[in-house]
Amino acid sequence: MDKIGLTEKCIAEQSVYSGKFISVNQDTVELPNGKTSIREIVRHPGAVAIVPEHEGKILMVRQYRYALDKETLEIPAGKMDPGEDPETCALRELREETGYEGELNYLGSFYTSPGFTDEIIHIYRAQHLSWSPLDCDEDEFLNVVAVPREQALQMAGSSGFFDAKTAIGLLLAL
Amino acid sequence: MDKIGLTEKCIAEQSVYSGKFISVNQDTVELPNGKTSIREIVRHPGAVAIVPEHEGKILMVRQYRYALDKETLEIPAGKMDPGEDPETCALRELREETGYEGELNYLGSFYTSPGFTDEIIHIYRAQHLSWSPLDCDEDEFLNVVAVPREQALQMAGSSGFFDAKTAIGLLLAL
Repeated sequence: MDKIGLTEKCIAEQSVYSGKFISVNQDTVELPNGKTSIREIVRHPGAVAIVPEHEGKILMVRQYRYALDKETLEIPAGKMDPGEDPETCALRELREETGYEGELNYLGSFYTSPGFTDEIIHIYRAQHLSWSPLDCDEDEFLNVVAVPREQALQMAGSSGFFDAKTAIGLLLAL
Repeated sequence: MDKIGLTEKCIAEQSVYSGKFISVNQDTVELPNGKTSIREIVRHPGAVAIVPEHEGKILMVRQYRYALDKETLEIPAGKMDPGEDPETCALRELREETGYEGELNYLGSFYTSPGFTDEIIHIYRAQHLSWSPLDCDEDEFLNVVAVPREQALQMAGSSGFFDAKTAIGLLLAL
């Protein structure tokens, strides 16, 4: 691995936006050939996603996504609070979004889009679920949908409309 | 599907950053309960990714990712130029990054992180490759690595360090 040959060195950091959930930098970097270039980077706190299996079905959430201006069917997920560990976050989000708690098994982690953001998502399978609702964020609107395992896997395999965490979570869990 | 019950309505658009590859909005939306909230959205031109199979191996690229401050091993990929169709972009990026061209088969598309960006990635399998190099972006630095199929699939299945397009591409193709 030729580390020296690929690394880009930051020569000027510039914060261009600092918001509630994300912040954006437009940094100047020195390339391996000595030239300079711009890197536009979105900093994100990281998130978790859960594949909850219950009575032969996968609990998924239907919600409106403003960025896409449409409804999506996704596995439960949420951003990590500052200092929160991923497993605690996964249990919290599962209870908030579906009303269930369960035993978590870590499936893996992935970067959503390393070309422009450091967002990482940690994925867990949740099994042996029991009803234990936690108040949902009052400004979060979603419907829980129980999708048969085979149907969920078929949907993930055709991958025509899913988001990354849902496709990866279903493909790894099923 | 209760569309009215979930939709968020934009009541004020605010552009907070407009860069070379991404732009960022901080919009005010009306929630289904009549309250207002803020949505931070990164607009992205969309991208393609390719799983190139050659002589029993998957051609992958090792590159430095500034957003992560580390090197990654990913399948070839790139952003779409304005007006460019995904398949043309996939052939171009494959030639630029690996030097090969081949027959493409569409595997699927996914949103990378619909909570904050509209980025979509279209994934193709490339087979029957022949050498046909196209000049790489002169400011792009990467090394091509040929990974045996079984090893690539095992890496994707453990999903400990991949990015979304690489995990999904390998899981769908292999």
